[in-house]
Amino acid sequence: MNGAEALVRTFVNAGLEVCFTNPGTSELHFVAALSRVAGMRPILGLFEGVVSGAADGYARMADKPAVTLLHLGPGLANGLANFHNARKARTPIVNLIGEHAISHRPYDAPLTADVEAFARPVSGWVRTADDPKTLARDGAEAVAAAFGPPGRVASLIVPADVAWTEAGDPADPLPIPSAERASPDAVTDTALALRSGESAAILMSGRALRRAPLEVAGRIAASTGARLFCDTFNARWERGAGVPSVDPLPYFAEGASVALAGVRHLILVGTQAPVAFFAYPGKPSSLTPETCRIQTLASPAEDCEAALEALADALGANQAAARAERDVASAPAGRLSPASIAISVSALLPEGAIVSEEAITASAALTPGTRGAAPHDWLGLTGGAIGQGIPVATGAAVACPDRKVVCLQADGSAMYTIQGLWTQSREGLDVTTVILANRSYAILQIELQRVGALETGPDVQQMLRIDDPVLDLFRISQGLGVPATRVTTAEEFHQQFARSMAEPGPSLIEAVY
Amino acid sequence: MNGAEALVRTFVNAGLEVCFTNPGTSELHFVAALSRVAGMRPILGLFEGVVSGAADGYARMADKPAVTLLHLGPGLANGLANFHNARKARTPIVNLIGEHAISHRPYDAPLTADVEAFARPVSGWVRTADDPKTLARDGAEAVAAAFGPPGRVASLIVPADVAWTEAGDPADPLPIPSAERASPDAVTDTALALRSGESAAILMSGRALRRAPLEVAGRIAASTGARLFCDTFNARWERGAGVPSVDPLPYFAEGASVALAGVRHLILVGTQAPVAFFAYPGKPSSLTPETCRIQTLASPAEDCEAALEALADALGANQAAARAERDVASAPAGRLSPASIAISVSALLPEGAIVSEEAITASAALTPGTRGAAPHDWLGLTGGAIGQGIPVATGAAVACPDRKVVCLQADGSAMYTIQGLWTQSREGLDVTTVILANRSYAILQIELQRVGALETGPDVQQMLRIDDPVLDLFRISQGLGVPATRVTTAEEFHQQFARSMAEPGPSLIEAVY
Repeated sequence: MNGAEALVRTFVNAGLEVCFTNPGTSELHFVAALSRVAGMRPILGLFEGVVSGAADGYARMADKPAVTLLHLGPGLANGLANFHNARKARTPIVNLIGEHAISHRPYDAPLTADVEAFARPVSGWVRTADDPKTLARDGAEAVAAAFGPPGRVASLIVPADVAWTEAGDPADPLPIPSAERASPDAVTDTALALRSGESAAILMSGRALRRAPLEVAGRIAASTGARLFCDTFNARWERGAGVPSVDPLPYFAEGASVALAGVRHLILVGTQAPVAFFAYPGKPSSLTPETCRIQTLASPAEDCEAALEALADALGANQAAARAERDVASAPAGRLSPASIAISVSALLPEGAIVSEEAITASAALTPGTRGAAPHDWLGLTGGAIGQGIPVATGAAVACPDRKVVCLQADGSAMYTIQGLWTQSREGLDVTTVILANRSYAILQIELQRVGALETGPDVQQMLRIDDPVLDLFRISQGLGVPATRVTTAEEFHQQFARSMAEPGPSLIEAVY
Repeated sequence: MNGAEALVRTFVNAGLEVCFTNPGTSELHFVAALSRVAGMRPILGLFEGVVSGAADGYARMADKPAVTLLHLGPGLANGLANFHNARKARTPIVNLIGEHAISHRPYDAPLTADVEAFARPVSGWVRTADDPKTLARDGAEAVAAAFGPPGRVASLIVPADVAWTEAGDPADPLPIPSAERASPDAVTDTALALRSGESAAILMSGRALRRAPLEVAGRIAASTGARLFCDTFNARWERGAGVPSVDPLPYFAEGASVALAGVRHLILVGTQAPVAFFAYPGKPSSLTPETCRIQTLASPAEDCEAALEALADALGANQAAARAERDVASAPAGRLSPASIAISVSALLPEGAIVSEEAITASAALTPGTRGAAPHDWLGLTGGAIGQGIPVATGAAVACPDRKVVCLQADGSAMYTIQGLWTQSREGLDVTTVILANRSYAILQIELQRVGALETGPDVQQMLRIDDPVLDLFRISQGLGVPATRVTTAEEFHQQFARSMAEPGPSLIEAVY
C-alpha cells in the first residue's frame, strides 16, 4: 500500500472517522485512499474555511479530532482563520496538507509556497513528512499531538511523492495522555480564598463548562457565595433550564469591568485571566480590578472536573446549585428584533440542541435571552475570526446526527464562509441557520466611537453598511441548495422557527430587522 | 493628525488612489481617515480574498499599487491565497494590516496571532510599525518596496495605538527605481544563439507581454525563425487580432514538452525556466529537453522591452511580425461547450476589453479560441490559487472604468471568492462574468489518472463532483446584487453575451454545459 493509504488506515486505527476536505491534485492519492478504505467518511467543502471550521465544530461535540485534507499553501491559507478559532478553542484537529513532491519543490512551480510557515501560527504541532516508510508513524504522532491535552491543531504536511510511494503497514495508535491533575496546593489555596469571606468569583471555560463540572461549580458557588462566570466566548458550554447558572463576561470591556468590580479573588478554571477583546485609548487591557488576586485552580491542560471536585471536597460544599429556570414566554408579536428572536428560540429550542452562535451585536440579546431554554450546548466564536458560525454548525451536525443544530449567525460575518450551506445540503445535515440581518457591520459602528475615531468624514457610514446592494441571503441559500425563507416580523419568525424545529434537514431563515 | 491620517496622506502623496478593504475594529482609525482625506477611494469587500485579488487586478491594469486594508492575523489570512497569486504575478500591492495596540499584545486577546508570520510567505517586504512619528516614512518605504522592480506585496503592519496616536506630517514619496537594463553580454549571447541556425524559442512573461515589446519580439521571431511562447499563466498579456502571435505553453507537462521538443536554445524574457505545474510519478519537473540550453535575456526585474529592442538591433531584425488574424465565425448553434463559448467571445468581445480568465479545464478551448478576438488584455491565474478570477476582474474594472471587463470563470473555483460579485454591484463595475458550469472539479478528474491514483473505490467520483446539490450560480449572483441569467445552448449564450457586451454594468451568465 502507498503512503496515503497507510496514513488513512492509521487514522482509522486511531478511531478517527471523518475527513473534511477540499482537495487538489497533490492530495489525489488521499482522495483515492479515502474511497478505498472503509471507516473514514469524506465530506467535501467548497471552500477551505468551511473545512477547518467544520472540523472545529465536529471535535467540540465529538471530543475527538476530524481530519482536514487541504491543498498546498494556498488551500491551507484559506482555512487559517477558522484554524485560528480552533487554536483558541483548544480543539483537536489532524490537519493534513498536501505538498509538492520533494523532487518538485526546488523548481518553484506556481503553487509553491512555504506551507510550514502558513501552518505554524495556528498549530501546536507541525511536521513535514519526508519518507513514506515513516509516514504512518508521523500520522499516529499527529493524532496524539492533536489530542494534547489541551487539544491543538496538528499539521502534517505530506509531499505528493511521499503519499504515492509504496510504504509500510499502518501504525498503531499512540496512547493519548489524560489531562493532568491540578496541584493539591492550587486546591488548598483556592479553598482558602473562598473561605476568606472576601468577594470571590470563579471564571471558567473549556472542559469546566460541561454539565458535570458545572454541577460541582454550582455547589461551590452556593456554599461559598462565589459568583460563577465563564468566558465571553467558549468552545462548548452546556447551559439552559436546570443547568447551574453561569454568567458570561460581557463582551465590552466596560461591562466586564463592572461585572468584576469589587472581586478580590478571581479563580481561573480552564481559562486565562480576562482581557479586553481590543485595546482602546486610555483604557486598560486587563479586565480585573488592580486589587484582585488572580489564582489558577486548573489550567486548560489540567483536569478541570477533578479540580473542582477536589475543591468542593475541601470546602465541604454541599449546598444545592442555583439553576437557570425554564423560560417560556408567550410567542412574541410585532417588531422583529434580537430580543424577540431570543424569546422564540428560548421557547422552541428542543432539548439537546446544539447552538453555533456568531450573532455579533445580536449576542447581547440572544445569549441572556436563551438561558432558560431547554438544555443545550452553546458553541461560541473563540478566536474572534468571523466566518465560524456556519462551518462549526456543519461539523457539529456531522458529530451529532440525532441532535438539532441551530446556527445564530449575523449577516455580515455569514458572508465569509457562506459556502458551508452547500455542505449542509449535500450531507442532509439537520441544521437551521438563522441569519440576523441588520445589513451593517453594526459592531464597527459601535466600535468607531469606542476607539476614539471621532473625526470622520461624511461617507464613513458607507464603509460600515452592507445594504447597497441588499444581500439576499435567503436567495444565496437557495442557490447553495438550502431551502430558505425571509421574515420581517416577530410572528413570522416564531412560525418559521417552530416549523424548522419540527422538520429535519437543513433550512435557513433570514430574519431582517 | 494621527498616524492613520498621516499614512493615508502619504499614500495619496505617492499617487495611490484606491484602497480595497474589509476592516475591523483595529482599522477604524484608517476608516475614519479614509473618510476625511480626499484622493483615496475606499472599496469594500465582503471577504478578504476579494480584497487581495481586486488589488492584484487593479495593479495589473493601473501599473501602480492599490492599498489593501485588512483586519489582524485572521483577516490577512483570508487574503493570503490571492496575495500568493499576486506574488507570482509580481504585482505591486501596499498591504496594510491593523494589529492590536502594542500595549495590548502581551495579553493574548482572542484575535492575537503572529501577523508577520502570516505575511512573510507572500510578501517581498514586511514591517511592523512601532512609532507614530515614523509611520508615514514606513508608508513611503512600503510604496517604494511594492513598486520593486519587480512588483511585490509590501506588508505594513500597524498596531492600533500607532494609528491613533498624534503623528508628524505625511511623508514625501520616495523615488521609484526603474527596471535595470539587461547586461550587454546577455544581448550578445542571445543574438549568437538566435543566429546559430539551431532551433530556438523565446519564452516571455511579465512586462514582455505588453504590446510594444511584443512588436519587437515579433520582428525578432520573423527575422530569425525563433518561435515565441509565453507562460501558461501570465499577469497581463496583450493579445488578439493584429497583435504579434505568441503561444502559451500548454498546461499539462506532456503538451509543454511536445511544444518545446527539439528546441536547442530557450531564451527567457521576464520569466523563469518552464516547469510542470505538478509532479507526476516518473515524469520530470523540468519541461525543457535535456539538450536545450536555457539563457536569460532579461529577468523579471529587468527592462524586458529595452532588452528586446537591443536584441532586435543586434540582429538587424526588420522582418514584419506574424500577427493573429481577426476571427469572426458565424454565431454557433446547438450544444453549449467551451468551444462554442470561445466562438461567441471571439466574435463579440469589444476592442480594449479586459479578460480575467480562471476557466481551468475550459481554458484549453477558450485561450486558443479567442486569439483572433479584437485586441484585449488577458489576465491569468498566476499562482494557481483558485478564486482569483472574480476579484481580479473587480480590480481591473476599478482601474479601467472605460473598458469592458469579462471574467471567464469556472464554477468550482468561482465559489472561493464569489462574494466579489457584491463589490461589482456596489461599485457599478462594468464586468460580465461568464460561469463555465461543468458542475465538477473536472481538472481533478483528469489529474486523478495522471498522478497514477488508479486504485480507487466506488465513491471517488462523488468527491470530485459538485452537482449534488446543484450550485445555482445565477441565483447566488442575484442574491449578491448582480443580475444573472442561465443558458444551456450555444444560441442562448451568444445572445446573452451579445446583450451583455452592449450594456454597461455588472452581469453574470451561468453557462451550463
